[in-house]
Formats: sequence, C-alpha cells, structure tokens
Amino acid sequence: MAQPVDFWVSIGSTYSWLSVMRLPDTARAARAEVRWRPFDVRRIMLMQKNIPFRDKPVKAAYMWRDIERRAQRYGLSARLPAPYPLAELTFANQVALVGCAEGWGQDYIRDAYRLWFGEGQEPGQEPALSQAIIGAGQDPARVLDMARSPETAARLEAETDRAMALGVFGAPSFVVGSEVFWGDDRLEDALDWAQRGRFD
Amino acid sequence: MAQPVDFWVSIGSTYSWLSVMRLPDTARAARAEVRWRPFDVRRIMLMQKNIPFRDKPVKAAYMWRDIERRAQRYGLSARLPAPYPLAELTFANQVALVGCAEGWGQDYIRDAYRLWFGEGQEPGQEPALSQAIIGAGQDPARVLDMARSPETAARLEAETDRAMALGVFGAPSFVVGSEVFWGDDRLEDALDWAQRGRFD
Repeated sequence: MAQPVDFWVSIGSTYSWLSVMRLPDTARAARAEVRWRPFDVRRIMLMQKNIPFRDKPVKAAYMWRDIERRAQRYGLSARLPAPYPLAELTFANQVALVGCAEGWGQDYIRDAYRLWFGEGQEPGQEPALSQAIIGAGQDPARVLDMARSPETAARLEAETDRAMALGVFGAPSFVVGSEVFWGDDRLEDALDWAQRGRFD
Repeated sequence: MAQPVDFWVSIGSTYSWLSVMRLPDTARAARAEVRWRPFDVRRIMLMQKNIPFRDKPVKAAYMWRDIERRAQRYGLSARLPAPYPLAELTFANQVALVGCAEGWGQDYIRDAYRLWFGEGQEPGQEPALSQAIIGAGQDPARVLDMARSPETAARLEAETDRAMALGVFGAPSFVVGSEVFWGDDRLEDALDWAQRGRFD
C-alpha cells in the first residue's frame, strides 16, 4: 500500500511553479495520493538564515535559467524572470489555505502561478489575487474576508510550525512519513519512496 | 557531434562524491567526453556570500540524508556524515590539478573521496593525502612538492577565476558551451544537452 505524499507548497517559491504545474499528471501516473499543504516558507527561511538568492546575483541568474531549461523538458512555457521576491507571500498562502480546506485550493494555486509566471502578475496582490480566486470558481469578497481573519492567519502559522517540525526548510518539499524530499527535482524520488518505502 | 562536458570538481564538496563515483559509467553510457577541472569552490562561495550549510543545521542534516538516499539509488555506500567542512580543501585541489595535468587526476580524486566518505579520513591531510596519491600510482614526495609550488597555486586560482567567469558558483558543476548545470542531480541534463544542445 502506497503512503500519501504531503506537498508542502508556498506561493512565492520559484521552483514550486514546476511542481504545481506538473503534479496533477505526474501524481496520476504514479497513482499517488498527494495532499497539498500551503505554508509560509519565508518565515522558516528567515528563522534559519537560509537566504538563497537575495544578494546572490550569480545564483539567482542561474536559478531562472535552470527553471527555463527544466520547463522546456516538461513542456511548460513562461515569461522569465517572473517578479521576485513577492511582497504578499503570506497573504497569498492564507488564501491557498482557505482554498485547500474548501476543495478549490489547487485550482487557485495553479492560477496564481499561471498569472505570475505567464503574465508577470504578482500573487497576493490585485488584480492577480481576485483573478486567481475567480479562476477557482469562488467569490473574491467572501474568500478575502476569510483569508484575512485571525483564524486563517493562525492556521497558516500552525501549518508552518508543523512543516518546520517535520524538517521542512524550503519549498517545494514532499514529505512521505518521516522522509523530506526538497525541490521539484525530488518529486519523482518522493513518489517512488511513497510506493516502496526505500530505494535499495 | 556531441559537445564536451567540463566537470568542475572541488574536493570538499559533499554532493560531488555522487558525481565522482558515478561519472565514469554514466559518461561512458552517454558516450560523452567529460573533462575534469579541479577548482577552489570555497573561494567563489565566500566571495559570493553563498554559505549553504554552516549555521544551518536543519539544511545540513537534510543534505546528509539526501546524499544517503541518492547513494542507495546509485548503489553506493558510505559512512555518513563524513567530516565536514574540510580544513585543507585548497591543497587537496592543488594536488588534483597536478594529477589532471599528468593523467592520474581522476584516480586521485576518486580515492580521496573513497577515503573521505568510506573511512572518514579528511582529504588534503595526512594520511589520506599520500594514500590517495599512492592509490593513483604516484610518488607522494614528488607530487606534494609540485602541488605546493607557487605555479600550481597560481594555476588553481586561474582555473577558479575561469569557473567564476563561466557562471559557476558551486560544485559539482557541469558546463556545456555557455550552459551551467549545477549539482549532481543535473548530470543527466548536462549529458543530454551535450548531445542535443537543447531540451525542447
């Protein structure tokens, strides 16, 4: 029996674009149960002094080129570099959390990434924010109220604490049991581990 | 006609263990020409403020577990974690540079990693240093003299500057023409790019 895979996703992470776009097909092909878990990766990274790209222009330039090449492999296209870093990362993920609880979170997250990487519109800010909510079939006024509530803010913090307790330090991360797989390039490893529980 | 692949390798890099061990078979299977280019990755990383693991215990613990799982996939075994970071990284790579100029560099680098990851002996320091040189069929006294010379030190600096000019910021890196592929997990991408010059 395969184990479920927790997909710790944080809108604002660049490499997560690749995972968000290819996950549905990839997970289906692997017959994997993947649970989307929005969290605030920036809070963890700041706490852990893990600053991968700010003040690192060479590494940042590489990141965009690497994403572009990987996207070619996966048949994805985008206008790169996309705006980065995001101003409203936390709020974008509060909306994602509301959506995942109600069953439309994946559609919203995918739309947010499509607008961000396809059209250069920052997630978490208008007009992309409402557009991604509408794209997921929801009413922005209702959703934004819920996302702004202290309860949602507290739940995102609790989910972020849970991710940190599991050893998640970056996004995207895939967690199977006690095993953390970090990065879009570890998605296949995570799905494989979910099936077999080992590699050897 | 396939392009050659420059393998920028720096003894001291942990993930490079995977590439060093699997490169001969992987390159042969891909019929790729791979040129081993020792350099001093630490100098570049310090200049670029790219400090991936020091003061980042969660990320460092993940790195060892990730290497362990990847090694299982590749059929490699090791005693992990290996001593890290290395005290004598620069000198270990000066010896590698001498070896690559004389044709025994790959054997020395592989032996250095075997002693480091298999037996916990730090490269660049005795007894591992001489043992790896002997393992490559060479006389330690002669090689250590050459490696210590100002000419060798200057050549390692020049090679490091060349890597930096190409956009290399970490190890292992694989460079095909103007494309940089960073990390053991991009080796297959680099070999593929060398064959086709594109992904789409």
